[in-house]
Amino acid sequence: MAKKVPYRIYLSEEEMPKVWYNIRADMKEQPAPLLNPATLKPVTAEDLAPVFCDELVQQELDSTTQYFEIPGEILEFYRMYRPSPLIRGYNLEKALGTPAKIYYKFEGNNTSGSHKLNSAAAQVYYAKKQGLAGLTTETGAGQWGTALAEACSFFKIPLTVYMVKCSYEQKPFRRSVMQTFGAEVIPSPSNTTKTGRAILEKDPDTGGSLGCAISEAVEKAVTTEGYRYVLGSVLNQVLLHQSIIGLETKKAMEMIDEYPDIIIGCAGGGSNLGGLIAPFVQDKLLGKASPRIVAVEPASCPTLTRGRYAYDFCDTGKITPLAKMYTLGSQFVPSPNHAGGLRYHGMAPILSKLYHDGYMEAVAVEQTKVFEAAVFFAKHETILPAPESAHAIRAAIDEALKCKESGEAKTILFGLTGTGYFDMTAYEAYLNKSMTDYIPTDEDLEKSFAQFPELPPELG
Amino acid sequence: MAKKVPYRIYLSEEEMPKVWYNIRADMKEQPAPLLNPATLKPVTAEDLAPVFCDELVQQELDSTTQYFEIPGEILEFYRMYRPSPLIRGYNLEKALGTPAKIYYKFEGNNTSGSHKLNSAAAQVYYAKKQGLAGLTTETGAGQWGTALAEACSFFKIPLTVYMVKCSYEQKPFRRSVMQTFGAEVIPSPSNTTKTGRAILEKDPDTGGSLGCAISEAVEKAVTTEGYRYVLGSVLNQVLLHQSIIGLETKKAMEMIDEYPDIIIGCAGGGSNLGGLIAPFVQDKLLGKASPRIVAVEPASCPTLTRGRYAYDFCDTGKITPLAKMYTLGSQFVPSPNHAGGLRYHGMAPILSKLYHDGYMEAVAVEQTKVFEAAVFFAKHETILPAPESAHAIRAAIDEALKCKESGEAKTILFGLTGTGYFDMTAYEAYLNKSMTDYIPTDEDLEKSFAQFPELPPELG
Repeated sequence: MAKKVPYRIYLSEEEMPKVWYNIRADMKEQPAPLLNPATLKPVTAEDLAPVFCDELVQQELDSTTQYFEIPGEILEFYRMYRPSPLIRGYNLEKALGTPAKIYYKFEGNNTSGSHKLNSAAAQVYYAKKQGLAGLTTETGAGQWGTALAEACSFFKIPLTVYMVKCSYEQKPFRRSVMQTFGAEVIPSPSNTTKTGRAILEKDPDTGGSLGCAISEAVEKAVTTEGYRYVLGSVLNQVLLHQSIIGLETKKAMEMIDEYPDIIIGCAGGGSNLGGLIAPFVQDKLLGKASPRIVAVEPASCPTLTRGRYAYDFCDTGKITPLAKMYTLGSQFVPSPNHAGGLRYHGMAPILSKLYHDGYMEAVAVEQTKVFEAAVFFAKHETILPAPESAHAIRAAIDEALKCKESGEAKTILFGLTGTGYFDMTAYEAYLNKSMTDYIPTDEDLEKSFAQFPELPPELG
Repeated sequence: MAKKVPYRIYLSEEEMPKVWYNIRADMKEQPAPLLNPATLKPVTAEDLAPVFCDELVQQELDSTTQYFEIPGEILEFYRMYRPSPLIRGYNLEKALGTPAKIYYKFEGNNTSGSHKLNSAAAQVYYAKKQGLAGLTTETGAGQWGTALAEACSFFKIPLTVYMVKCSYEQKPFRRSVMQTFGAEVIPSPSNTTKTGRAILEKDPDTGGSLGCAISEAVEKAVTTEGYRYVLGSVLNQVLLHQSIIGLETKKAMEMIDEYPDIIIGCAGGGSNLGGLIAPFVQDKLLGKASPRIVAVEPASCPTLTRGRYAYDFCDTGKITPLAKMYTLGSQFVPSPNHAGGLRYHGMAPILSKLYHDGYMEAVAVEQTKVFEAAVFFAKHETILPAPESAHAIRAAIDEALKCKESGEAKTILFGLTGTGYFDMTAYEAYLNKSMTDYIPTDEDLEKSFAQFPELPPELG
């Protein structure tokens, strides 16, 4: 009899990947470059230097280096919480009665509670190395802000976090965690930036949006001596750092002689999904394997499934470079009744390109179905998932149920990005049945698309 | 050069202990037996049968079986979140500038957020096996209730949790987690029991106490057909189940050729400390080694350091058996300004006996010092500790600083029992300096001691 696969598969410290994988190096066609919004020319290192620290600018623009060596200091940081476990969902399989084998890579086993720490550690390290005076960022649900606060506290560099105001008010404990790690947390929109003041003047009671918080954080960084801005998703550099997730996963699966038929990840800006799938997409690009790859997004913010592939601003204030991506329009804000995270209007250019070129599928799921899956999962696997992660659970369960019907014993892999400790308000809403679903109408989306930047036809 | 010890040492699934260790089997003198409060005779299996399920009664009363085989179903449950990592606190050592080597066994890597799940899984499994209709329990800070809700949801058995009212109100999210796992959560004191009604009549605005919640949960269990009561600490059976912590720790340390000079654990009812130290106390009892063992308790609830070793009730309502233990009196309630957990008036009889016989030391620490250590630890080790666990961190840091002074490279081991995600109100109080310390006066304690049960002199 074959040896039973353990519940939790850990690599040893020596087996941990010592490089990040740059998916662009193997892509036959490159994602379209970021554009300087003033010149509409591809951004240069000089354009980005006031915003990002130098080494990260290099990583952002480098589409040819296949592997980047992870600096020793970052590896040391990773070793405090990595490798993360690859878990065999035996009890989930049993509860579903599916012949499918379900694996999930669990990134919630650190205080920040999510995979965000992988890129935070890297970005903060490079900022420290450059001798910067401080960093700014934005956070929505709070996972990125928390991760960054942890990394900044460790590498001893000041941090200002613009937190989307409705989250700031609904998640006071998230805020306290960041403050515990020494970060300054400002509700956005705020009076500390021109963008914030302009938005507040128009709508003093706004709950804010991620796009607006990004504008404020960028403005603050470029107007403060020695400061730079850091972003937790969307960018090439972030997907590069997050490739540690996929590299570990692939190695762990090799150790147990497995290879996924289907890989599923939740998709907001794309940091987790991009990281998880990176080495598997490589196999696909090089013709070595052809797993199905499924991005799962909320029906209330359906970037891939209903957005357009177009150049757009990355922020509400329209001060960032233009990115060619699937987008709902930089002015799109999902209904406040959407509790499940993944609220960003765009999608990482790398993932947008892969999706556009047919390497990846996408599905949109409604939030009550997502929370149903979350509670089911918690009861059988004893992990309380973040609502974001539960999007992937929903899709994984649906695929496992299809296997039950067809009798196929497929190997399903999904990314469990984090834990839901700070999302109990949303769980409560689900449990007491006050949670509703929201799906934007076609008219809503058309209104939003109408605000795309006006560009010459060749960039359309 | 010797191979560097990894940051995280995990046993493999096969290396996981398959037995629990019963420390009583090696004790030269036994802890005094529980007494039936009506007859003042040692409790019998018949006395306990209405309260606890049968197999747990056997474990409670068995002082001779050295090792209990862990049933396969419980092992399977453990494998969903165990083995837990033994972590080398390299960054903590560096930040302190100490020559000491600091290790900690981290039990917070599961949704319940603490070590409590180890005994919850066992107790619920036996209840299910006996075909019980349901279980009752109490919870203070919420860790035990959460763990039990998870286990009950997994093994499919109904659960009613009496949650100390002030926690119920201050920690709504803890409550929601238990409800997510399907538990019924009732603020205590409540109108659902005689004890609760009596207490509410005297003091309708009381915030409740752990002792009172225990009374209610026991009363509910013994008056409901097919129900039994489960307790998360103090009892012999709980220390037995928690020995998995110490057994894993000892094995992991052997793998890296280490043995602790000092073992430190926080002590409320004693479940974590008793489990962590069990196999090391065995070495001490058998003359094989002599590590220092230090129990850390809050200065506001100084059971070991200022309590008396006497027979006392385990609950406020005086309906439980009498236990000979270090106790502040069953009517003792720590000041509500005490945020750091570990509020129980008594201490596990096994630990009380070991302490009384000189196998263990105890220190009491003030809560602002505890939170200072917690924040320092979080910043350097990136884990946000539960306030309870932070008591052990405080003592470990103090010992490491002594080593710095003396130049000794001692090996310090402490138990990091859980995470602080649901304790941010207390962290906020510490950060904004509204947290104060509270130490009961000698008069406070004398008043409490005066309410000990009246017993014949030979039981005094």
